Amino acid sequence: MSLNTFGHVFRVTTWGESHGPALGAVVDGCPPGVPLAAEAIQHWLDRRKPGQNRFTTQRREADEVEILSGVHEGVSTGTPIQLMIRNTDQRSKDYGAIADSFRPGHADYAYWVKYGVRDPRGGGRSSARETAARVAAGGVARAALAQLVPGLTVRGAMVQMGAHAIDPAAWDWDEVERNPFWTPDAKAAAAWADELDAIRKAGSSIGAVIELRASGVPAGLGAPIYGKLDQDIAAALMSINAVKGVEIGAGFASAALSGVENADEMRMGAEGPEFLSNNAGGILGGISTGQEIVARFAVKPTSSILTPRATIDRAGRDAEIVTKGRHDPCVGIRAVPVGEAMLACVLLDHLLLDRAQTGGARGRIGAAG
Amino acid sequence: MSLNTFGHVFRVTTWGESHGPALGAVVDGCPPGVPLAAEAIQHWLDRRKPGQNRFTTQRREADEVEILSGVHEGVSTGTPIQLMIRNTDQRSKDYGAIADSFRPGHADYAYWVKYGVRDPRGGGRSSARETAARVAAGGVARAALAQLVPGLTVRGAMVQMGAHAIDPAAWDWDEVERNPFWTPDAKAAAAWADELDAIRKAGSSIGAVIELRASGVPAGLGAPIYGKLDQDIAAALMSINAVKGVEIGAGFASAALSGVENADEMRMGAEGPEFLSNNAGGILGGISTGQEIVARFAVKPTSSILTPRATIDRAGRDAEIVTKGRHDPCVGIRAVPVGEAMLACVLLDHLLLDRAQTGGARGRIGAAG
Amino acid sequence: MSLNTFGHVFRVTTWGESHGPALGAVVDGCPPGVPLAAEAIQHWLDRRKPGQNRFTTQRREADEVEILSGVHEGVSTGTPIQLMIRNTDQRSKDYGAIADSFRPGHADYAYWVKYGVRDPRGGGRSSARETAARVAAGGVARAALAQLVPGLTVRGAMVQMGAHAIDPAAWDWDEVERNPFWTPDAKAAAAWADELDAIRKAGSSIGAVIELRASGVPAGLGAPIYGKLDQDIAAALMSINAVKGVEIGAGFASAALSGVENADEMRMGAEGPEFLSNNAGGILGGISTGQEIVARFAVKPTSSILTPRATIDRAGRDAEIVTKGRHDPCVGIRAVPVGEAMLACVLLDHLLLDRAQTGGARGRIGAAG
Amino acid sequence: MSLNTFGHVFRVTTWGESHGPALGAVVDGCPPGVPLAAEAIQHWLDRRKPGQNRFTTQRREADEVEILSGVHEGVSTGTPIQLMIRNTDQRSKDYGAIADSFRPGHADYAYWVKYGVRDPRGGGRSSARETAARVAAGGVARAALAQLVPGLTVRGAMVQMGAHAIDPAAWDWDEVERNPFWTPDAKAAAAWADELDAIRKAGSSIGAVIELRASGVPAGLGAPIYGKLDQDIAAALMSINAVKGVEIGAGFASAALSGVENADEMRMGAEGPEFLSNNAGGILGGISTGQEIVARFAVKPTSSILTPRATIDRAGRDAEIVTKGRHDPCVGIRAVPVGEAMLACVLLDHLLLDRAQTGGARGRIGAAG
Repeated sequence: MSLNTFGHVFRVTTWGESHGPALGAVVDGCPPGVPLAAEAIQHWLDRRKPGQNRFTTQRREADEVEILSGVHEGVSTGTPIQLMIRNTDQRSKDYGAIADSFRPGHADYAYWVKYGVRDPRGGGRSSARETAARVAAGGVARAALAQLVPGLTVRGAMVQMGAHAIDPAAWDWDEVERNPFWTPDAKAAAAWADELDAIRKAGSSIGAVIELRASGVPAGLGAPIYGKLDQDIAAALMSINAVKGVEIGAGFASAALSGVENADEMRMGAEGPEFLSNNAGGILGGISTGQEIVARFAVKPTSSILTPRATIDRAGRDAEIVTKGRHDPCVGIRAVPVGEAMLACVLLDHLLLDRAQTGGARGRIGAAG
Repeated sequence: MSLNTFGHVFRVTTWGESHGPALGAVVDGCPPGVPLAAEAIQHWLDRRKPGQNRFTTQRREADEVEILSGVHEGVSTGTPIQLMIRNTDQRSKDYGAIADSFRPGHADYAYWVKYGVRDPRGGGRSSARETAARVAAGGVARAALAQLVPGLTVRGAMVQMGAHAIDPAAWDWDEVERNPFWTPDAKAAAAWADELDAIRKAGSSIGAVIELRASGVPAGLGAPIYGKLDQDIAAALMSINAVKGVEIGAGFASAALSGVENADEMRMGAEGPEFLSNNAGGILGGISTGQEIVARFAVKPTSSILTPRATIDRAGRDAEIVTKGRHDPCVGIRAVPVGEAMLACVLLDHLLLDRAQTGGARGRIGAAG
Repeated sequence: MSLNTFGHVFRVTTWGESHGPALGAVVDGCPPGVPLAAEAIQHWLDRRKPGQNRFTTQRREADEVEILSGVHEGVSTGTPIQLMIRNTDQRSKDYGAIADSFRPGHADYAYWVKYGVRDPRGGGRSSARETAARVAAGGVARAALAQLVPGLTVRGAMVQMGAHAIDPAAWDWDEVERNPFWTPDAKAAAAWADELDAIRKAGSSIGAVIELRASGVPAGLGAPIYGKLDQDIAAALMSINAVKGVEIGAGFASAALSGVENADEMRMGAEGPEFLSNNAGGILGGISTGQEIVARFAVKPTSSILTPRATIDRAGRDAEIVTKGRHDPCVGIRAVPVGEAMLACVLLDHLLLDRAQTGGARGRIGAAG
Repeated sequence: MSLNTFGHVFRVTTWGESHGPALGAVVDGCPPGVPLAAEAIQHWLDRRKPGQNRFTTQRREADEVEILSGVHEGVSTGTPIQLMIRNTDQRSKDYGAIADSFRPGHADYAYWVKYGVRDPRGGGRSSARETAARVAAGGVARAALAQLVPGLTVRGAMVQMGAHAIDPAAWDWDEVERNPFWTPDAKAAAAWADELDAIRKAGSSIGAVIELRASGVPAGLGAPIYGKLDQDIAAALMSINAVKGVEIGAGFASAALSGVENADEMRMGAEGPEFLSNNAGGILGGISTGQEIVARFAVKPTSSILTPRATIDRAGRDAEIVTKGRHDPCVGIRAVPVGEAMLACVLLDHLLLDRAQTGGARGRIGAAG
């Protein structure tokens, strides 16, 4: 992870600003021979696309991906894959207020003090629009994973909005595709809809927690000590706009557990080792165990709100700022496909990194073990 | 971060196993001319050293650091600094049980399935002894920071043990040095002592939460999008043994905040911009704002416990395992100096990375801003 | 340097194939505030552009660069700069012969055995068209260098074609811009023109040697031991298509020198240390000394020729191949601006890397030295 | 390659100074299960060891390697391998003259201007003693290669000393082990012995050219565009002390070849594709073709000589310098095992990097090709 690139051997470099002509990702290190069609990648982009319901920004972007390189006759060639998405709904408006004053909680101030120059149009590089490039790259990762590890799935869901968490017992993956919150709990979806309407009307916004699950992940992925799988997942998720916390498995709750409670006991099953619980979230010592990978991340509320907030301007004067425009009242919603994409990229990267070092050879359990 | 190295331009590579002859860190990219004495680094190592009270492992290690390279006449030369710590209390005992069976919750199984070979003595590479090398490297980072940013401080404290959090209002940094938990709340220290005695006697262990604070950090550190300061902090902390969660500023609590509550409003103060709150934990858009950096991480309970747990062995047979030996009942305690060291390394790395790109030039506020 | 990215902190990632819709470079880590206009970058691209005289390929490409990100109101913002060049003269022709058989001396065979899939159209990713992206990136590097080290210049010239080297005594930098070979020796240019006409008519091609010189380079650039300035220059030049050799200063000739002859003696001049010779090519111990940087690289003859050569095809049958189409008879000519661009990128990268570690502080000579 | 680390996924970090207590290498990313004994690594170190004949420095160093980590019960565990070599013959002498004045042609001046501090004892970090760490790391690479690609060999030989090249027709690999120059031409060895005696007595030194050959290298290694195999070989060799030039295959001679001459024609042989010549040196488009890899590098004469040379001192005064002490009159001799080690490391690194991306899958020739 360095500047605008992440990954060890499957590397993604994103580029582009919110209101520039285009943005995109260069995906490098993809195995050759992976079937890749723009339509398949588009499928994932459409899930993140703005303007799909009243709870996401009303900016109208087709978010149409173009594959400019690295694919020949429908398969990856092993050379870099350029995925470009044109910006089509950059409104020509006056960014004067935002250009001079800093939105509290936003990257405006930080970019200014670091670079001494910034593109204020739509947040420039710090806009969540950058995450479209991640989702496109994630589409490539998913295609490669589908070929290399057929049964592997990566899914995400919103499990908390504001102070209200879902009922884990009500978890229904099918429900995720049926509501605008990507939540597996139908009751929570209904309650959140009312709550978010109220928040939006009040000119405010709200935070959320997203949970990601990857099943079918081979045991043995992760490179201790400083390329641990959980460490790279943490980095990948923390790099998403507005994320303030990441946890694996039991996460922060594990602080309250005893060693007896926390230990995921094992038994030999018909098809190999089995775990009796999953506090570890599928990762021990930085290496996947074959259990389901479970990660959660917290998304703070959108900082671009209609309620006036105290701030300063570049001239060093106290000021008040109101952010008009088209902003998500709960940016956590669209973070679901983004989190999935990041996890898919990390898993593929570690699959390749592991076969570099170990060739996929594995310590055996049983028989000749 | 890759395999056993972390950092962009200030890079630390650690090596060594729990029961090998030695372990250490190669610190590369340290600025030249930094005063470096083994004694100063030893100061930090002594804080992490085992066997200092009844709540840490009774293994007796001097943890004496030797500087084998990179320092001439008391100052760094800009060449790699090899910090070596000899292992002196590796007991020659029978590791048969641990070598054949896998401790639930421990890296044993994961290392075996990945590598097909492992050093079972004391946990080998996955032992928390590796963190001694981090603390030594952190000592170098602190010395360089002291020269480059004189007022900068990096401190840590345990803020929760098991289900019991400290009273934030009782926070007293001086208290941290007076109790065996590195906690700033004297009452919590007393209560935890009783609780941990009971846990230890019961043959179990317990988790914890550690909070890190860095003040005096210049605004402008962090390299969006994929070298964000918070992302690298998250990676560095998640790489520590037994860590299952990381958060910045308000962290997971920010999910429950409204945008109005979460926004850290700004006002122009006598000495520059001031923030009226710090939900951001000192980082916006991946870049430091000049506010105090606040990070927390959750440490799961030690998995090496005296209570028998169900497991399997390499032959694929169900088994029961009890881990005798000298283990910390709350590994979170000694994670405090480790967390501090990691944060110091990340801050120095980003200080250097920032001056690479920007030369330390900054957007001005006020006057000619 | 990894897959399709080069550089430590000034990183360039190139993408694109010869006959895809476009190719380009993502330039990451550029300092903020550098004036960047497409026109200025175009200036360098125009030098490399095909079809400018009878000695380069007759493919007609405008090679027009578009800046898609990272520049706002005419200056770099510190975020990634996407430079895109559309391919406009990809002829729809039958690549059947080349797609099935392998051109001797060409990357055809190597790509096939590595990836099992390749884009045969115009050589795909292995085409010298990729070097347009390097030249564009070099334009960014030059602009940043112009701001950071005003007097620094990077220039190149062809010093040998086939068996015929220039007369060093006739070196005239102005002449370089006047002939189609970028050579500083007018007589050589005239002789080479005749020779190359004959070679072209004979359906063959010829090799060349290019010399690069950078003056005004600050002393102190280069990161021993494995980020040496000469090492990175060697890597950057060897990465250019068709390059088979690289040397610094006296290069291979230094093997025949005695230690007495080779030592570049020093004297104190009015403006600082002076060297009495430059066998070192401006680099000692991997670090620049302030002398002119001198590097040379050898370019093999174009492997796409009209003379039939023995080869095999994918089916494992012996075959004969003739490469029709629009190819440079001496690909070394257009390697001049490419070599310059690579050297500019390496120098900027090391300037930034050096200020990361040393802050540009320097050991002083004289006075308080 | 960055600061003191080289390699993509098989990474070597070296540390240590000429006269510090020890030096060494951390080897990271070695596959698990590779048989590794100190004795086997020692074999390679003994070849580079000083003081073995009158043509190398008379410094007496056992160069005994200790494996401090990463090996358990005789095999690599996949964790970092620390290889340490103690310095035992650092003479306590007065370095006053060298500490104050700069040896022409040596890194003294460059280190001083970069870092403002340097360890003058024996050249500190810039001493060729650092190459012992490379040779030790190369021993690990050779062991891993022996397991992964049984038939692969990496060998080197001195092919030119001063102005005198060997007779290629007289090449005899057995002869290499019989003379102090590691040269395959017995007559050259005899002539060089006389010549080098004279040079040494005259208080001077001399340069050399070394050739490396690797056979049995699988086709498909190398990661275009910026991780090309030849590019990484060039970087690895140029990073060796005193190297001023690197070439692959026909190298600089290819500049004088026509396209007809240069093309290595192919025919289908009984065991697969065959090449009728090897101007490419086994690499096309940055990827190995299965032919023998051929690389050469030029080593300048030792700059530490007994003949007085003009220089300056730190105070900015003109001075004269004579370097007494124990120096190799032809440092190229001991560069042979160093070059071999670097090539072995690069080949293993690319073998692992290739299986990361392609899994070792290959485009087939013939049959289902």
